[in-house]
Amino acid sequence: MPRIKLTLAYVGTSLAGWQSQPGGNTVQDRLEAALSKIADEPVRCHGAGRTDAGVHAIGQTAHADVPERRRGIDWRKALNALLPPTINVLDVREAPERFHAQLCALNKTYSYTLWPERAFCLPQRSPFVWKCGPLDIDALREAAALVTGRHDFAAFMNQGTPVKNTMRHLMRLEVVELPPVAPNVPGEIVLSFTADGFLKQMVRNLVGCLVQTAKGKLSLADVRSVLKARNREQAPETAPPQGLCLMRVDYGEDGFGHHRRHPAGPAPDDG
Amino acid sequence: MPRIKLTLAYVGTSLAGWQSQPGGNTVQDRLEAALSKIADEPVRCHGAGRTDAGVHAIGQTAHADVPERRRGIDWRKALNALLPPTINVLDVREAPERFHAQLCALNKTYSYTLWPERAFCLPQRSPFVWKCGPLDIDALREAAALVTGRHDFAAFMNQGTPVKNTMRHLMRLEVVELPPVAPNVPGEIVLSFTADGFLKQMVRNLVGCLVQTAKGKLSLADVRSVLKARNREQAPETAPPQGLCLMRVDYGEDGFGHHRRHPAGPAPDDG
Repeated sequence: MPRIKLTLAYVGTSLAGWQSQPGGNTVQDRLEAALSKIADEPVRCHGAGRTDAGVHAIGQTAHADVPERRRGIDWRKALNALLPPTINVLDVREAPERFHAQLCALNKTYSYTLWPERAFCLPQRSPFVWKCGPLDIDALREAAALVTGRHDFAAFMNQGTPVKNTMRHLMRLEVVELPPVAPNVPGEIVLSFTADGFLKQMVRNLVGCLVQTAKGKLSLADVRSVLKARNREQAPETAPPQGLCLMRVDYGEDGFGHHRRHPAGPAPDDG
Repeated sequence: MPRIKLTLAYVGTSLAGWQSQPGGNTVQDRLEAALSKIADEPVRCHGAGRTDAGVHAIGQTAHADVPERRRGIDWRKALNALLPPTINVLDVREAPERFHAQLCALNKTYSYTLWPERAFCLPQRSPFVWKCGPLDIDALREAAALVTGRHDFAAFMNQGTPVKNTMRHLMRLEVVELPPVAPNVPGEIVLSFTADGFLKQMVRNLVGCLVQTAKGKLSLADVRSVLKARNREQAPETAPPQGLCLMRVDYGEDGFGHHRRHPAGPAPDDG
């Protein structure tokens, strides 16, 4: 059975997240239905990150084992013909048998997009941004610098998935102000998070905290003590899902990486 | 009756264009319904450009006369509370009585976005691009340079609205290649058209022709003779509506311009 690596994009607005559910309507359910139809037998797939309901992706990855007799097929074309318009497969390639979309990932990058206005929004952008209102960008950058690095991010993890180790290395947290696309329209603020792993809702919890700082409701000292307290209950609210997008999963030079975690180790994260 | 100038954005996908229709579901119908509800009396509005069904805007403008007794109101807030999520008002300001959204416009800018792939598309972008496939960007630029300037654009006008004068000044036609947003994903190609006026479907007809050139199906000499022939039947097919967006309407420094055409002159164009 050849193993394939898939790269996919989706608009999460009307989807129930990545992870398969009894009710269906998740990305995994839709993808498995399409894979199984083409293979003419049940095919399971495994994603790199469990994105929540309403969260988008432009670089989610997954792997699946497909029947030998379907080896010559153009999987991308066949899958895109079956998938709903909210999900598209960008790339499919044959992977070594050892490849595992979740366990071989070296790091992941999520973006979170802020709309610094409340009174209006471009309808083109409203499904992809958090209308958080005006922000002090300097304060945002200072708070971002403070949480960057190797930390115990327990204060920014939602409950639900038991995790033994809450240390993560947030290698990069970039704050980019995009130029306005028209007069009267503000430029979006894009936060890019790259880490060796993310705890459950870690990005959205960090964004909630950074935005509070950029609104003057939290000081840098407050952020420092939230991080130190390692207690979710002391941290600000979770940012809404629609601003979040899984941008890429990095597997190193050959694109397939290597197992770096024991299968019994941390559960797949969901940003 | 104070006159107001509105700037608005919309996603045209599920709308029947700008212009009021018996069936409703146009931007003008939705906007007039909201204006009339707030005014508590019938209010008509007049747009700068008649965008077609499926065409988007982030800088459409319109004017309307509203009752004196509603002068103090926050029109933007009130309208956005009533409009569907596909339409948003970005700006409302009081305008001089002489202001007319269509007749006072100095120039308009439309963008047309090309997706240089056929096999897949980001679902985030598919409602806003034409999946035209790979293009020779140099050929595209050369053809763009050729049609820029003051020309008789009769070959690029669809029938429907009688127009006496088909001369237009296409002051700027910029071709911008955006950087890819992820590995495996191509950068979009954005064409920006600024002119003192546009004939019916002029932008989409020009784009159809430019794309044929960038695919090697038309030579520069062909484009030159299409332009010269001033005959729509000799010109290539119209590009689909979803790539088109009305970006801005320029009224000069004070934002209100001055009447430059006689009301009996050319009908409002629709890109």
